Amino acid sequence: MRRSIATVSISGTLAEKLAAIRAAGFDAVEIFENDLLYFEGSPADVRRMAGDLGLDIVLYQPFRDFEGVAPERLARNIERVKRKFDVMRQLGTDRLLVCSNVSPDTICDDGLAAEQLGALAQAAGEAGVTICYEALAWGRHVRTYGHAWRLVNTVNHANLTLALDSFHTLSLDDTPDGIAAIPGERIGFVQIADAPRMQMDVLEWSRHYRCFPGQGDFALADFTAQVVKSGYTGPLSLEIFNDGFRGAPPAATAADGHRSLLLLESLTRETLQAEQAQAGALYHPSAAPAHAQWQFLEFAVDDTARAHVANWLEKLHFRRAGQHRSKDVTLYQHGSAAIVLNAEPDSFAGAFFQRHGLSLCASAFRVDNAREALERAAGFGYQPFLGRVGPNERVVPAVQGPDGSLNYFVNEEPGQPTLFEADFALTDIDGPVEVGPISGIDHVSLSLPAGSFDSWVLFLKSAFGLEATPAVLLPDPYGLVRSRALMSRDRGLRVVLNASVDQHTAAAETVRAYHGTGLNHVAFNTGDIFRAVTEFEAAGVPLLRVPANYYDDLDARHALDPAFLDALRDHNLLYDRDERGGEFLHAYTETLDQRFFLEIVERRGGYDGYGAPNAAVRLAAQARQRALAAKEAREPQD
Amino acid sequence: MRRSIATVSISGTLAEKLAAIRAAGFDAVEIFENDLLYFEGSPADVRRMAGDLGLDIVLYQPFRDFEGVAPERLARNIERVKRKFDVMRQLGTDRLLVCSNVSPDTICDDGLAAEQLGALAQAAGEAGVTICYEALAWGRHVRTYGHAWRLVNTVNHANLTLALDSFHTLSLDDTPDGIAAIPGERIGFVQIADAPRMQMDVLEWSRHYRCFPGQGDFALADFTAQVVKSGYTGPLSLEIFNDGFRGAPPAATAADGHRSLLLLESLTRETLQAEQAQAGALYHPSAAPAHAQWQFLEFAVDDTARAHVANWLEKLHFRRAGQHRSKDVTLYQHGSAAIVLNAEPDSFAGAFFQRHGLSLCASAFRVDNAREALERAAGFGYQPFLGRVGPNERVVPAVQGPDGSLNYFVNEEPGQPTLFEADFALTDIDGPVEVGPISGIDHVSLSLPAGSFDSWVLFLKSAFGLEATPAVLLPDPYGLVRSRALMSRDRGLRVVLNASVDQHTAAAETVRAYHGTGLNHVAFNTGDIFRAVTEFEAAGVPLLRVPANYYDDLDARHALDPAFLDALRDHNLLYDRDERGGEFLHAYTETLDQRFFLEIVERRGGYDGYGAPNAAVRLAAQARQRALAAKEAREPQD
Repeated sequence: MRRSIATVSISGTLAEKLAAIRAAGFDAVEIFENDLLYFEGSPADVRRMAGDLGLDIVLYQPFRDFEGVAPERLARNIERVKRKFDVMRQLGTDRLLVCSNVSPDTICDDGLAAEQLGALAQAAGEAGVTICYEALAWGRHVRTYGHAWRLVNTVNHANLTLALDSFHTLSLDDTPDGIAAIPGERIGFVQIADAPRMQMDVLEWSRHYRCFPGQGDFALADFTAQVVKSGYTGPLSLEIFNDGFRGAPPAATAADGHRSLLLLESLTRETLQAEQAQAGALYHPSAAPAHAQWQFLEFAVDDTARAHVANWLEKLHFRRAGQHRSKDVTLYQHGSAAIVLNAEPDSFAGAFFQRHGLSLCASAFRVDNAREALERAAGFGYQPFLGRVGPNERVVPAVQGPDGSLNYFVNEEPGQPTLFEADFALTDIDGPVEVGPISGIDHVSLSLPAGSFDSWVLFLKSAFGLEATPAVLLPDPYGLVRSRALMSRDRGLRVVLNASVDQHTAAAETVRAYHGTGLNHVAFNTGDIFRAVTEFEAAGVPLLRVPANYYDDLDARHALDPAFLDALRDHNLLYDRDERGGEFLHAYTETLDQRFFLEIVERRGGYDGYGAPNAAVRLAAQARQRALAAKEAREPQD
Repeated sequence: MRRSIATVSISGTLAEKLAAIRAAGFDAVEIFENDLLYFEGSPADVRRMAGDLGLDIVLYQPFRDFEGVAPERLARNIERVKRKFDVMRQLGTDRLLVCSNVSPDTICDDGLAAEQLGALAQAAGEAGVTICYEALAWGRHVRTYGHAWRLVNTVNHANLTLALDSFHTLSLDDTPDGIAAIPGERIGFVQIADAPRMQMDVLEWSRHYRCFPGQGDFALADFTAQVVKSGYTGPLSLEIFNDGFRGAPPAATAADGHRSLLLLESLTRETLQAEQAQAGALYHPSAAPAHAQWQFLEFAVDDTARAHVANWLEKLHFRRAGQHRSKDVTLYQHGSAAIVLNAEPDSFAGAFFQRHGLSLCASAFRVDNAREALERAAGFGYQPFLGRVGPNERVVPAVQGPDGSLNYFVNEEPGQPTLFEADFALTDIDGPVEVGPISGIDHVSLSLPAGSFDSWVLFLKSAFGLEATPAVLLPDPYGLVRSRALMSRDRGLRVVLNASVDQHTAAAETVRAYHGTGLNHVAFNTGDIFRAVTEFEAAGVPLLRVPANYYDDLDARHALDPAFLDALRDHNLLYDRDERGGEFLHAYTETLDQRFFLEIVERRGGYDGYGAPNAAVRLAAQARQRALAAKEAREPQD
């Protein structure tokens, strides 16, 4: 289907917007009236500018408060709309979005509304224009597409069609299931917007919190499947009012918009195929990896940082498992968790270290089909990357994530040397290294600049096919942190995204320290957390201290067995329990390099979360630790 | 009355919070349970810490979901609350806030609720504790103070009292008028919070958007007057859940909290006096200036900046009216508008220039009683300032505003030399200088860091007694700008505050350029704007160009006389009309020094606004101008 976006969705002047929209891959655009109003030039100039870029102007919008008015007002409304027809002729577009009347004095009379929409259709017909009539969720009388369609169907004029907007339907919890029954040629335009579920006035919600498909909580594939089944073949057009997008650079926003449409199309295709319906001309990406898991995490280091991290890994009983054949790169393993320390100056990691210091510069994912995974990610517009490869070393395909870090796709063929065997001189044959209580990587948690949070959601959903939980707000003593978890269906991959709402939280400091890319922490799985923390503490790993008051409250909330509670307290373990009795026990290390830290987790009984109720306790303890460290740094030691 | 604040209202560790609260002048504090939970130390340690600071812990909170439960649950709830009594004993406080039950399975039976609250009161009596029972606005059954009071009154036990919270009452549009009839000794605690009017779920509104009294839209003086009339003599305590405060430095937030209580007390006192009721022990500040207006605006400059600004002023037909007797300071006048350019290096202005560059470093206000005005501002905690004064020059009292700039209070005595005559060698006798179409200063508009917006609202309300309009959001092409106007009752002073929600707007750039202090623009009044812009353009003042599309839309909206519309278009004038036919005609200059700009306004027929509907057009035109300037700076000139 044709992919379009409304100019109101991104920031900048009209010229900047159109250029960014074209560069992102759209072939069509809706002109939002205010953008024209503020433009220094005529509508014909806008037409030329769009035409030079190869963009079709498929809609002009919005026209407000037309139908259901007193008869003497109708004449004025017709006059008003005819002026807009003149503008449209200059713009070179033949579709006008007309929203249902929101005025308090709108007359509640479907017969009158239909009669006046009929007059509108006739004027439109004379001007060679098609009206797309849309029910606003906060319209005075017409609020649902079903109601709008009854009026359009009553008028039954070729120049009056129905406009759909997913926000107006899904924000009211109205079902989209009636859309398929509307003849597709009677639907003049389809707008798509997602949004997080919020308990607020629907007009405010719509004006400030819309987002791209996949970034919010709406079931948009079901909505779009209904649209396809109706036979509609016009554009799918994003119309996003989002305060964040208004303040973000337009090119990146437009690129996310385009890939969000591709993602929506691909999910709609799956929905339709599951319903054994025709999928139409929807985007068809390569399949997402079915069973991805981390192959390794790669840190950019220099000699000093390597010694520092290696020291920590050794205390956590990681084994130095190999040395890269051609680069200054070391491999550490513990269970299935593998950490690569890359100190090669003349490399991607070296450049990353230059900019970000000690940081997570690459993640490698073991998948069933690396070529297919790369094709999928590249299809969604992520940049493929090929690094320098030594003789006999494996060529590993990768794409760059939103922060510029690399994401490798690795598949191991039976009977062939593994990636580690090919690239590293191993101290032992490749395989899980059972040297201690860690079994593997549970999840990776990233601290992000607030403006890139939703870009990461799209990246992980589109390139990896992950699913997202709703966002939560976590209280740090110095401000709020927005957090959202994404995971694969089989839970082989779990990623937690954090973005600080405020400037003074630990997450915000991490983002600044890393210049925009930031690991928050890596969580390792264990089957026996009491053994793990006992062994690690004995080896000198400093664990984050948990206040005694936490355990008193834990007891009041969960009424735990006293011996178990004592054990938790003695080991500085945090505890959570889900509704089905699943349990989560976890401990944190103090921060490493004053930026990131490590977590040891044990999941019991199918617990699927991340201990969010404990986040405030952890953040307060970390703040205390940072304050102490700052105080020590200020006061000369005796 | 005693002034208290809940620890949840400000950011930081518990130790940081208590220190900031004490430094701000509070003598009492509520301990919010989570702050204790995250504290590394016992409740007795908290008691010692507060005691050492001289802070009383007047309340522990909250205890949730007690009443209206099945009988078997009651025993467990009594056990739960007894543990909290133990904590309170250690904390050294005897008041516990108990919120009305929000649980979906709460039993709707006032008899049962009263019976269980009776059991709670008895347990509290045995422990020497007083329960303060509060109706949450989103309680399952008990949502109003009236309902909560009926239960408390039914139980009729000395250890069960009513807690009031202005948010819970005013958010529901419940009237506070019944409070005065409740016996004051039966009210155990009073919490105060303001909030902007918002159309959203009341729980979300309460948790994220509360603010200090005077910063929001609630009629808090009426609420507090009712409390005083009841005979309540306990603390007034701020309980503010605000996302911004969570991320802001605690000392400044606490200081604003304290002065907001002083302001509320003084407004409550006025309300009570108007009702001829006893004002109790409420704060009584010196009177606000009755007829303040700008005496002058003072810019910090160096030689280059002075030449630049002087050039602009001369094009606007300002007259160079005098030279300071002892400092490198020049006075310009046009009508009653006076601009002072201060290039004295060894002075406050010199230091201000060092840090902020060309900037507004001081504002002088002509008032009837300067000493009283200073006392008032100092009483609200603003820092008095005395600059260097030469022989025979006037000593002018001043306070520092939230950005550190000076605010002088000037009164002129009949028969005495004026300030300008005393301090300046004038080219003419002092008085309005009728050299052109400008009559005076209409308003001053400031660009602020987002975090100081509400501090400025409090400053202008408390020190100057100004009134505020509700905040509006203005769309800049690169993000949203929050804007709010404050004005004196006689409209002699009008100040517009702007804070950018996003990083890339012109307002945000101004804040960065000025390092936290920033004039956005000065608006000058004229009685004939067509004459004014004609003369100024002829003198070489570059006016901001307004796109032709704006006038087409203006015509569609207001159906203006064609000749008038042409005149507006020809002069690049913006136009607004209010509901009573008042009109606003205004024009902007291009930006001066790439940061601030000037506006010429004509008010007709009592128009009282600032042309907010035109802000988007102005912001877009300025963005275009900045983009052009940036392009020219990049491209070498031929």
